Amino acid sequence: MTNNDADGQGGQGGEPTAQDIAWPQGFVAHAGHAGVRQSGDDVSIIASERPAVSAAVFTQSRFAGPSVLVSRRHAASQRLRAIVTVASNANVATGAEGERNAAELVGLVGRMLDIPAEEVLISSTGVIGRQLPMPPLREHLGAAREFDAGPFAVAGAMMTTDTHAKVSSRTVGGARIVGVAKGVGMIEPDMATMLAYLVTDAEVGPIELDNALRSAVDRTFNCLSVDTDTSTSDTVALLANGAAGPVDPDAFAEAVHAVCLELTEQLARDGEGATKLLRVVVEGAASPAQAKRIAKSVLNSPLVKTAVHGADPNWGRVVMAVGKNTQHPEDLAITPEKTTVRFGAMEVYPRATEEEQLARLVEIMRQDEVEIGVTLGLGEDTATVFGCDLSDGYVRINADYTT
Amino acid sequence: MTNNDADGQGGQGGEPTAQDIAWPQGFVAHAGHAGVRQSGDDVSIIASERPAVSAAVFTQSRFAGPSVLVSRRHAASQRLRAIVTVASNANVATGAEGERNAAELVGLVGRMLDIPAEEVLISSTGVIGRQLPMPPLREHLGAAREFDAGPFAVAGAMMTTDTHAKVSSRTVGGARIVGVAKGVGMIEPDMATMLAYLVTDAEVGPIELDNALRSAVDRTFNCLSVDTDTSTSDTVALLANGAAGPVDPDAFAEAVHAVCLELTEQLARDGEGATKLLRVVVEGAASPAQAKRIAKSVLNSPLVKTAVHGADPNWGRVVMAVGKNTQHPEDLAITPEKTTVRFGAMEVYPRATEEEQLARLVEIMRQDEVEIGVTLGLGEDTATVFGCDLSDGYVRINADYTT
Repeated sequence: MTNNDADGQGGQGGEPTAQDIAWPQGFVAHAGHAGVRQSGDDVSIIASERPAVSAAVFTQSRFAGPSVLVSRRHAASQRLRAIVTVASNANVATGAEGERNAAELVGLVGRMLDIPAEEVLISSTGVIGRQLPMPPLREHLGAAREFDAGPFAVAGAMMTTDTHAKVSSRTVGGARIVGVAKGVGMIEPDMATMLAYLVTDAEVGPIELDNALRSAVDRTFNCLSVDTDTSTSDTVALLANGAAGPVDPDAFAEAVHAVCLELTEQLARDGEGATKLLRVVVEGAASPAQAKRIAKSVLNSPLVKTAVHGADPNWGRVVMAVGKNTQHPEDLAITPEKTTVRFGAMEVYPRATEEEQLARLVEIMRQDEVEIGVTLGLGEDTATVFGCDLSDGYVRINADYTT
Repeated sequence: MTNNDADGQGGQGGEPTAQDIAWPQGFVAHAGHAGVRQSGDDVSIIASERPAVSAAVFTQSRFAGPSVLVSRRHAASQRLRAIVTVASNANVATGAEGERNAAELVGLVGRMLDIPAEEVLISSTGVIGRQLPMPPLREHLGAAREFDAGPFAVAGAMMTTDTHAKVSSRTVGGARIVGVAKGVGMIEPDMATMLAYLVTDAEVGPIELDNALRSAVDRTFNCLSVDTDTSTSDTVALLANGAAGPVDPDAFAEAVHAVCLELTEQLARDGEGATKLLRVVVEGAASPAQAKRIAKSVLNSPLVKTAVHGADPNWGRVVMAVGKNTQHPEDLAITPEKTTVRFGAMEVYPRATEEEQLARLVEIMRQDEVEIGVTLGLGEDTATVFGCDLSDGYVRINADYTT
């Protein structure tokens, strides 16, 4: 619990493993089975025992669901104190009835915790276009419940097609930050990602908290894409209850970033059907926006993703994915002469065409993490984005999701 | 050969089947095996026996290959008379050597046909980043060759991952238009598509020819996407040699559009790994650009494409794919309240949630053509785009393309 290495990985360097991570001081949680899905926990509540300040970002989708609409209103005051998540039904495209249902659920949670409904954030995640099964949810949330669940259990209760729970933790001064996240399909977050919650016992002001979260999200969850499909339910929230007292603001922001980054890489690696983490780094761009645009273009190319999946040394697809950007005037400055491409540390364009080089490239592409680097030679800006390979597993998972 | 129904399909309504379609008057072709690939024809030449006027559009990729660069220069005069295609090597990302090779090949074809090299268009298609195998190409193109190949044989010699040759034909007045095309992966044409050539014996002026081609391409090939990846080699060319004399300009433009549309649907249906043609129609958009943007967003959604593949009645993914468009100010007017979604003739949003309705939707999605309609309720503009489902076959084809 004393690891200050913000770049370390959970489970290394003294951090507890995901299963053993505990909530920061003053936070408790419930995870249970209400019956939204046939088996397994499907409802969770994270709550602060004392008032908290909060920051939150949500999907920009024009089809943001009723749960997001309710949560967005509640988050505006930056006084969120509890988060309830319903897994396996998105409550999206459900109209006025869906909004009444979301309002009823936060009311039930507020009564259970004896706090105003306006201090409860609600997320729902799963299939779109079906009303929430209210009778079992009313029964589950209408009664007193045990608040004995750790972060790993809560992250488990949030999962849909995730194959494992995502948890990350960092220590900052005398305080801790714990994050949980879910979401491995319909993932190309716009202003936030699927569902990720961070809680901390650090004492942080609302503006500082908001800045730390937005800055981290912009470089982590917003740089993640599994399949270019932006969810209607994306939500990231950070609650701080101050139980551990004040901490250094820069160290706090850095630790928030580290937790978001670790969760982002966990989500990417567990992308639907994924067998590998794919990281694309663009350097030498004329603007940060160009760097991210080109990086996303490579990251999202189905041909690059399938080549990475099969360790096919077909690096020409990367230059294709760079070259296809022609809509933004800035990108017309991209030329084959100024561009270089590398896989890991191995430069492949303009150089690698010998059989021996291609054999080395296959070895690099067989690792469970593949990093593709592109330099544009146009400026000084950079971007790093996170995704995964495209496998037949993705197709299998999504060809019969609801049936 | 007398079918004037521009909307008919090849093989129906009196049109000859693809195998039997002959070139228009004054056009001849060669198809042969030079040895670029191990077996099968890999080189083809289409030539007009008399001078022709031409129109052509090319990929906008910043990594357009040397063959495209050479062809773009030659096409500028609108006097193209021959088209040579090398299949299974793209000659892209090959630098100055690649450009010298392309120039040498058009020179050889020009000598073979006794026409200036500047009247020869060259296309190459296949793997990126390898130099053309010049010795066998020199040997093949340096000798006299039989010009006895029909459109079906030429289309066959152009194929890479295509599973069958694409040919389309229409009659207009006393003239004919014959088109051949290839390209079923790395397909989201920007200003043109993979490779499509149209030849006609109609007498048409260069401006009229150019207008007819661009107008048709904009509504057909440029509305096609297999996998969002824009090729470095996209080329569409239309040659008119006037042998059949003048025709009605509007009927000509309509017939060019019909040939382009039929080839576009053939390409979409044969998309890598595809089992179905997917057509997305957006109506009620505020602008033509918005209509196309939203239609492409639905067409390209991997979650929509996999649902179509598995006939999973998960229509919520369509509203997700509509809602995720948030970058263009115009799209902020999209609302769940004004939007409707249909599959075929069946409205699914805001209505279909009953089991019986979902069962009917499964039946619609099991057809080998699936049409998704979206109305935005914002204006009068419409767009129709063409693609296919996403199957594990796509992954298999592309995970080991070069190995």
